[in-house]
Amino acid sequence: MALVLVNKFVLTATPEEFEKVFRETAEFMRAQPGFLRYRLVRSDTDPTVYINIAEWTDREALLSLNDRPEMVEHRAEIRTVAIPDPHFCSPVLDVEGAPR
Amino acid sequence: MALVLVNKFVLTATPEEFEKVFRETAEFMRAQPGFLRYRLVRSDTDPTVYINIAEWTDREALLSLNDRPEMVEHRAEIRTVAIPDPHFCSPVLDVEGAPR
Repeated sequence: MALVLVNKFVLTATPEEFEKVFRETAEFMRAQPGFLRYRLVRSDTDPTVYINIAEWTDREALLSLNDRPEMVEHRAEIRTVAIPDPHFCSPVLDVEGAPR
Repeated sequence: MALVLVNKFVLTATPEEFEKVFRETAEFMRAQPGFLRYRLVRSDTDPTVYINIAEWTDREALLSLNDRPEMVEHRAEIRTVAIPDPHFCSPVLDVEGAPR
């Protein structure tokens, strides 16, 4: 079953620094088997908050990256610019707007 | 510009009670102008956490609902089953997986 990784980041650096590091990590993730897509959004409610919503084919695809040296490095790097709060999630409901 | 509403809910009732109330609210939202889609996911990391990711055409569409009596009622009802933590967000990056 699809896995949705929702990761909330609270900035500890500037938005520019965070986005630079995030893009590097995301470029690595994007090239891995099982990666489907991600969307990075920034909170207008609290501009120190970014949320990454990433879709993977399955949990194993993401877990298999955990011990890869590049992954360990990217994880360490992102922690120098933000505090992550990741949730591995399963879809419950997917609803499109009513046709007009 | 598109608005992404990311709302994290921490359960104060059973998952069944929360999902029932959420579905009722979502059915109302779905019928409103400007609503595009939503996805409700449940955290495997912490099963007392649900996250709703809703897309709207723009912030005004969502804000215009704020004072509607149905909205006030739905908001009150959902607070009887979970603690919401909503973030109004703007898209920063949207990336699809690399072709294989």
